[in-house]
Amino acid sequence: MEKDKVILGIDPGTNILGYGIVGIGKNSISVETSGVVMLNKLNNHTDKLKRIFERTLKLIENYLPDEMAVEAPFFGKNVQSMLKLGRAQGVVMAAGLYRNIPITEYSPRKIKQSITGNGNASKEQVAAMLENILQQKIEARYMDATDGLAVAICHHYQSGNIFNAGKAKNWEQFLKNNPGRIG
Amino acid sequence: MEKDKVILGIDPGTNILGYGIVGIGKNSISVETSGVVMLNKLNNHTDKLKRIFERTLKLIENYLPDEMAVEAPFFGKNVQSMLKLGRAQGVVMAAGLYRNIPITEYSPRKIKQSITGNGNASKEQVAAMLENILQQKIEARYMDATDGLAVAICHHYQSGNIFNAGKAKNWEQFLKNNPGRIG
Repeated sequence: MEKDKVILGIDPGTNILGYGIVGIGKNSISVETSGVVMLNKLNNHTDKLKRIFERTLKLIENYLPDEMAVEAPFFGKNVQSMLKLGRAQGVVMAAGLYRNIPITEYSPRKIKQSITGNGNASKEQVAAMLENILQQKIEARYMDATDGLAVAICHHYQSGNIFNAGKAKNWEQFLKNNPGRIG
Repeated sequence: MEKDKVILGIDPGTNILGYGIVGIGKNSISVETSGVVMLNKLNNHTDKLKRIFERTLKLIENYLPDEMAVEAPFFGKNVQSMLKLGRAQGVVMAAGLYRNIPITEYSPRKIKQSITGNGNASKEQVAAMLENILQQKIEARYMDATDGLAVAICHHYQSGNIFNAGKAKNWEQFLKNNPGRIG
């Protein structure tokens, strides 16, 4: 299938990193790949960061994404957790910055809102909606991979395209955001 | 002057990044360079991270450090600050990880302790001690650059060498840590 754009979505954690890569076609979204990088067996925090960097760079090299979307950590954790999560996120972003790929960050709430219309949706609701959008089964075992897909699709919805009703505030804005879409 | 080792020290902040590169000789420490990267004029956090990554990578390429030492953020800030500082730190570490340079992290307290013998030393006390160690004047204008030098020298002191009295708990340990140093 022809693709207009490839988006890499990443949910960076310090124990598991989830990723999803979607191809955006004229009227479709397809999953190129999705998966997780297990980090919990690595004792050393630096080793984890190294693994995150290497795997993110490998995904970029293999799938050549045009854009990247990264899930921001949920606030409310303690400062030490935030520092570790920030580092993990920074390493992911560095891999993208190194390849000059534009990166956008989305809060967990924004992602849920964008996918389901409800910022407080459960993980199961997000997964069900993703199955509907992608027309394929999502394995509950890999919830973190699903989070990667969700942030990639959220980014697509937020990028001012025809699927995205939320961003076009009015008809003029819609036309401006979608040149060439309307014959 | 012949150098056994080059150490890149970095104090990563979100407004100013300080760095110092020292060359370790048989009985001497020399400053290769030190300076700051101003980030406060960049509005976008992603632009800041990109600048941090590019400048760190450039320092690595230009000075080919054997090891890197990074100052850890001071705890007690709010979670949002910690996340931003963590990201900045992660980006710096990614640049080193990418070049396969071993990275060690030191707390501000550990750095002060290592340089002055007092974990609660003031910035001025650290600077004065550095002037003594490096046998050169340190400009107060660039305190962040001094922090970069301080973490590099702290790393040297912590790496088990003849200058480091603190790490050798006893004479046996000292000999073990310093093979070939004692005729």
